[in-house]
Amino acid sequence: MSWLDIAPDSPFSLANLPFGIISTSGNSTPRAAVAIGTYAFDLSSFSPASAPAKVKQYWEAFSSPTLNTFASLGRPFHREVREYLQTVLKDASNKDAVRKCLVLLSEVTNHLPLKIGDYTDFYASTNHAYNIGVLFRGPDNALQPNYKHLPVAYHGRASSVVVSGTPIRRPWGQILLDPKAEPKVPTFTPCKRLDLELEMGMFICTPNNLGEPVDVQNAEEHIFGYVLMNDWSARDIQAWEYVPLGPFTSKNLGTSISPWVVLADAAIPRAEGLPNENQLASYLQEGKKANMLDISLEVDLVTANGKKKTITKTSSKNLLWSWPQMIAHHTITGCNLQPGDLFGSGTISGTETGTEGSLLEQTKGGKMVVNVEDEERKFLLDGDSIVIRGWAGKDGERIGFGEVGGQILAPLDLGKK
Amino acid sequence: MSWLDIAPDSPFSLANLPFGIISTSGNSTPRAAVAIGTYAFDLSSFSPASAPAKVKQYWEAFSSPTLNTFASLGRPFHREVREYLQTVLKDASNKDAVRKCLVLLSEVTNHLPLKIGDYTDFYASTNHAYNIGVLFRGPDNALQPNYKHLPVAYHGRASSVVVSGTPIRRPWGQILLDPKAEPKVPTFTPCKRLDLELEMGMFICTPNNLGEPVDVQNAEEHIFGYVLMNDWSARDIQAWEYVPLGPFTSKNLGTSISPWVVLADAAIPRAEGLPNENQLASYLQEGKKANMLDISLEVDLVTANGKKKTITKTSSKNLLWSWPQMIAHHTITGCNLQPGDLFGSGTISGTETGTEGSLLEQTKGGKMVVNVEDEERKFLLDGDSIVIRGWAGKDGERIGFGEVGGQILAPLDLGKK
Repeated sequence: MSWLDIAPDSPFSLANLPFGIISTSGNSTPRAAVAIGTYAFDLSSFSPASAPAKVKQYWEAFSSPTLNTFASLGRPFHREVREYLQTVLKDASNKDAVRKCLVLLSEVTNHLPLKIGDYTDFYASTNHAYNIGVLFRGPDNALQPNYKHLPVAYHGRASSVVVSGTPIRRPWGQILLDPKAEPKVPTFTPCKRLDLELEMGMFICTPNNLGEPVDVQNAEEHIFGYVLMNDWSARDIQAWEYVPLGPFTSKNLGTSISPWVVLADAAIPRAEGLPNENQLASYLQEGKKANMLDISLEVDLVTANGKKKTITKTSSKNLLWSWPQMIAHHTITGCNLQPGDLFGSGTISGTETGTEGSLLEQTKGGKMVVNVEDEERKFLLDGDSIVIRGWAGKDGERIGFGEVGGQILAPLDLGKK
Repeated sequence: MSWLDIAPDSPFSLANLPFGIISTSGNSTPRAAVAIGTYAFDLSSFSPASAPAKVKQYWEAFSSPTLNTFASLGRPFHREVREYLQTVLKDASNKDAVRKCLVLLSEVTNHLPLKIGDYTDFYASTNHAYNIGVLFRGPDNALQPNYKHLPVAYHGRASSVVVSGTPIRRPWGQILLDPKAEPKVPTFTPCKRLDLELEMGMFICTPNNLGEPVDVQNAEEHIFGYVLMNDWSARDIQAWEYVPLGPFTSKNLGTSISPWVVLADAAIPRAEGLPNENQLASYLQEGKKANMLDISLEVDLVTANGKKKTITKTSSKNLLWSWPQMIAHHTITGCNLQPGDLFGSGTISGTETGTEGSLLEQTKGGKMVVNVEDEERKFLLDGDSIVIRGWAGKDGERIGFGEVGGQILAPLDLGKK
C-alpha cells in the first residue's frame, strides 16, 4: 500500500488516481494533478525521474491547462502513467520528492478538467424515461417505440458545462402557468420548477474520422474516464419548448460535473444493466452480459437554511445502454468524436421511492413534497444546494468520484422595463 | 472603386470583403484572407504600413489558423479593418504590395473559417416548419402551439460542421421500412432518404457570461458575420429517432458551410420577414419592422451523371425570427455564447413550388419527383452533388457568399459480419 496515510474509506485510494486540473493560492496557473487521500498531487511540479521513457517524454502534458493532450495520447499511455504513479506512491524513496508536490484538496481550486468540444446527453435509464414520459405524455406514450431499439440522445450545450461549485442562477423563460388552458399563451417569468438530474458523465480520449463509425467492440478504447454530473433542468420551460426539436434553453442554463476524472482503467465493478428484450441492431450488439458500471450514487438536498437530506440513493447500473453502445450509436451515421467530448448517461433512477434522480420524479410531477428535516420542497428554491456523491469498491481500494455540487442563486430582474 | 479589375456581377465586390481561412500549394499553413474579385488577398503576408495603430497592433491575428481571435476583437475593430482594406484597394499606390499577396480563388484551399465551440440550429422559416410538420405529424399538429411564441431550436453537433467541398458519406441507421406496420421494428440499413437543407449560418464574435442573457437590443453587436449552410439530413433515420428528444444522428452526419464569412457590417439589404400575429414576450420585442436579411438563394442539384437543375430559388427573408431574436432567446436562461459559435437559421422555404429548401418538401414527402434534365430524383443518390449560392445587392456592389457544395459518397459496408 502507499507510504502516504490514506483512510480506508477515502474515495481517492491507490486503486483510483483520478486526474483533474487545479490551481493554488501560490500558483494560479491551472495544471494537472491526481487526487490521493486528502491531497492533490501536482504533476506539473513533479520530475518523473524513474519513469519509463515515453512517460517522461510526454510529462509536459501535465503543464497544460486542460487534460485534453494527456487524453489524446490514448489508453495504453494512460495505463503506463497510472502504473508509474502507483509505483511512486508505494515506494518510500519517493516520499520527499512527492511531498513537495502535495497540496491539501481543501486548499486547491478545481477547474474544468477538459475542454469540451461537444456534449451529448443520453436518456439511458428506463426507469427515469418512463417516469418522465408519464408526466409529459401520459402512460400510453411514456416510452416511445424507439426507446429500447436505440440509445435516445440529444446534443447538449458544451459552453455551459461548469465545474462543481459553480453557482447556478434561476433562469427566466416562457412557461404555461396553466398547462390545461386554451389557447396556450405563455408567460415570461422566472422558472418555478428548477430541478436536478443525477447522471454519470464520460469523456472521450480517442477520436474517429467523419464518416467512420466506431465499432461497439472497439469503443472502450475511446473512453478516457468518468465524472459525476448534474444536468440542471427548468421543467416548466422544458415542457413548453421541447416539441418537436427537444429540450434547449431548459437545459443550456448549466450542467455541473465533478472535478476528478476517474480513468477508464480504474477497476470499477460491473453488473448487469436494465433488461432489453429486443433483438438489437447488429452495431449495438455488445455480447457482454454485465457491462454496466456499478457505482453507488447519492444526492443531498441542502436548503437555504442549512437543512439537509439524502433524497436519492441508487446505482449507476440502472441504465439500459452501456457507454460502448452509446459511442457506437453516436457515431453510426459517421459523426466524428473528439478528445474531450463529454457524454451524459441521462438521469439515473431505480424503481423504488428514494432512488429517483430528479425532483420531478420524486414529487410525482410536483404533486407530492419531499421533506428535508422540518422543511418541505417540491422543486429547488433560491439558496438551495444539491450535492451528488459517487463511489465504488471496498475499503482500502475505493474508487470515488468526490462530489459535484452547486447552489441556486436568485434570478435576475428581467421584467418589463 | 478598386484599382483591381472586378466584374460588375462579382459576389466579392469592394462592398463585401468577406473573411476566410486559406492555404496554398506554396504555403500549406492555414491563414486569414479576404475575397476580392477573383482573388484571395492573403492578409498574413501583407504589411499594414498605413493602417491605424490598433489595426497594425492586432494584424498578427491574421496569421492564426482560424478567425476566432479576429472575431473576438469585436465589431468596432472589424469595421476599422474593413475600412482600411477598402482604402488599400482603392488607392493605387498599394498595387504592388497587394498584388504580392493575391492568389486566384481557384488556386486556394479553403478551410473552416472559425473553430466552432457550439452549433445551434433554429427552425425559423414558418413555411418549412409547416411543410415538414404536415409530413411528420399531420396538418393538425404541423405547427406546434409554441412555434410563434419562441424561436424553436436544438443544439447541433459542432465537430461535424465542415467546409464546402467536403464529401458526405451516405449514412447507415435504423429506419422503419414501413412506417405504418405494427409493432414498429426498425431495420438497420443505409439511409434511403438523404436530403439537403438550405440555411443561412451566423457566427458569434462577442461572448456573454453564464447567467447573463443578451438583450435583443444589443444582440447585433454579438454578430461576426454570415455564411451559407447545408444541413444534410437523413429523413428516414430522423423520423424514427426524433421523438422525444429531437433529431440526433440524422443530423450529426455532417453540416456544410461556405468558406467566406460576410461580415455583419457588409450592408446586406433588409426586408420584412414572415408575419407573427402574437404578442411577443418582452425579451423578443425587437421593435424593428424590416430586420431580416434579404439574400437571394439558389440550390442546384447535380446528378452523378452531371445533369443539373436549379431546384430552389428563394430569399433569406422567409424567416419568422431575426438573428437578434435568436440570440436573445438562446441566452434567455443564461446560456453563454462564445466567439466562433455558429447558428443555423433552419431550412428556408418560400410558399411556392420551386422555393422550398429541402427535397422532402419538394417531393411532398417522397410522393412526387423532381426532374433534373432527363433524370428523376426524390432524394439524393450516390454521386449527386448539391451546390447552394447566395448574394445580395446591385451590380458593382454585390455582397455574395460564394457557394457551399458537397457530393454524396456511397455508404460503407456495415452489414452483419
